[in-house]
Amino acid sequence: MSVQWPEKVIFCEVGPRDGLQNEPSTLAVERKIALIEGVADAGVKIVEVGSFVHPKAVPQMADTDEVARTFRRVEGVEYRALVANLKGVERAMASGITKVKLTVSASESHAKANLNKTPRELIEGFKECAAFAAAHGMEVSGAVSTAFGCPFEGKVPPSQIREIAGRMHDLGLTELSLSDTTGMANPRQVFDLSSMMIKEFPAVRWFLHFHNTRGMALANIVAGMQAGVVRFDGSLAGLGGCPYAPGASGNIASEDMIHMFHEMGIETGIDLGHIIALAGQLRDWVGHADSAVLKAGTCAELVPLTAAKKQG
Amino acid sequence: MSVQWPEKVIFCEVGPRDGLQNEPSTLAVERKIALIEGVADAGVKIVEVGSFVHPKAVPQMADTDEVARTFRRVEGVEYRALVANLKGVERAMASGITKVKLTVSASESHAKANLNKTPRELIEGFKECAAFAAAHGMEVSGAVSTAFGCPFEGKVPPSQIREIAGRMHDLGLTELSLSDTTGMANPRQVFDLSSMMIKEFPAVRWFLHFHNTRGMALANIVAGMQAGVVRFDGSLAGLGGCPYAPGASGNIASEDMIHMFHEMGIETGIDLGHIIALAGQLRDWVGHADSAVLKAGTCAELVPLTAAKKQG
Repeated sequence: MSVQWPEKVIFCEVGPRDGLQNEPSTLAVERKIALIEGVADAGVKIVEVGSFVHPKAVPQMADTDEVARTFRRVEGVEYRALVANLKGVERAMASGITKVKLTVSASESHAKANLNKTPRELIEGFKECAAFAAAHGMEVSGAVSTAFGCPFEGKVPPSQIREIAGRMHDLGLTELSLSDTTGMANPRQVFDLSSMMIKEFPAVRWFLHFHNTRGMALANIVAGMQAGVVRFDGSLAGLGGCPYAPGASGNIASEDMIHMFHEMGIETGIDLGHIIALAGQLRDWVGHADSAVLKAGTCAELVPLTAAKKQG
Repeated sequence: MSVQWPEKVIFCEVGPRDGLQNEPSTLAVERKIALIEGVADAGVKIVEVGSFVHPKAVPQMADTDEVARTFRRVEGVEYRALVANLKGVERAMASGITKVKLTVSASESHAKANLNKTPRELIEGFKECAAFAAAHGMEVSGAVSTAFGCPFEGKVPPSQIREIAGRMHDLGLTELSLSDTTGMANPRQVFDLSSMMIKEFPAVRWFLHFHNTRGMALANIVAGMQAGVVRFDGSLAGLGGCPYAPGASGNIASEDMIHMFHEMGIETGIDLGHIIALAGQLRDWVGHADSAVLKAGTCAELVPLTAAKKQG
């Protein structure tokens, strides 16, 4: 058997949005800006900077306008924000954010529980967002959440994902993410669903977004690469837990993912040491982390032989 | 691209040996026996029950003779113990253990730091073990530790692993394990090294043994399966940390690995619920664990829809 690995991958940092959104204490605007500027300086080419949603829905994101207006832009970096409706797109534009992301759950029960609408109704509502964005030269990205499983329904049929992706594609979206919102994906499923989506929608730039809830995130990334996906989301320090499993792991840690890519000889264009420093800083700010590399260090950090004597 | 997955895999539980060996408090004999009997009852077909080494070297394993004499055997299950020399093989036989495992480090500095011998010298010393075992109808298994990297030297050249594996094979060993003692393996390396070893030594039954130190263990197992390996070690509750990175993750948790196999539709013949219960019991006994499934539950455990309302 043979396996092909990509020469390079594209990494998107979602910590400032997905990582932080469920943190109980609001991180100061200056710190959010430091993270966004830090990852861009480290070489990350796509950064999800926040979400323009109702401040009561996600209090941590109430300051996204201020953050978005203020951070220093790095040439060549895409800054993306989550929006849920036309108001969000307008706020994004007013804050100088030219790329927005619309999310729809693949699961009826998940969509209804969160927003009291069916996935189709949600996508209908996105039409005006896409039209406004097109009229103002903004790019629209999309995400299908619970694509690999819903905590209420279990597995979502691939045909349902395809239908939803098709409707999102029809809105004129340039890129789509398959999001494993609650960490239910497994490598076989990732390979099969990713392969199918790439085949059905070859013009779409596909992203995969994994949570490490059951420890499978890096295994899923490996399977995704084998299906031909080269774009992956991660979150500094592994922030962003699962709301249905308190205490469980959150998004896959950016530093763990980038470390794996580099160990495999896959280019990211990112300075791993810089990312690890930022992850450590964020851990100190929020008081927790879920990151193997923050605990163990990288594979490249060798131990002086004298240390071995102490181990006996 | 296409990917092939095995229909079934063979899982070996190493918790009673590798998981426990660095635990500071000795687990009572009855509890060790309960673990060994429990995993066999749950359907595990290979169990590493302890090590017959000098009690001063590994105090936790000082009672392996008593454990090995006492536990209830399950028909069809292989009980294996780690040994380091002829004395260990004799003790194994006296305790009714008919399968022993010899380990050699692929790295000169690691071997010298631990045992003050080169890998070749160690293998020379194994000859009498293998001869004794053969004369008494015992099976000998082998492990190449630091096969994917040494904490002092870094990566070990594949040619060096091949040479050591060849010398072990010449001793008459029926199965060999590539062990990632300090969690330095990455999926590309696992695929390449496993493929090479299977090709060079097609008669050997190959095992892979991963630590989750940098979060890559399940990803490495995925890569190993694609290279054709179907035998994997795991440790209940993820016990067995890295001596060079205190607080880092240990062996990949049995329950996380078996959960992934089952989610992928790969048979293990093991009752996952039983394994999770044992892992939880062990966590309570030793006071810690490193297990995604113990924290988050399985993917199959759905949440009642009413719980969603509370999330807003």
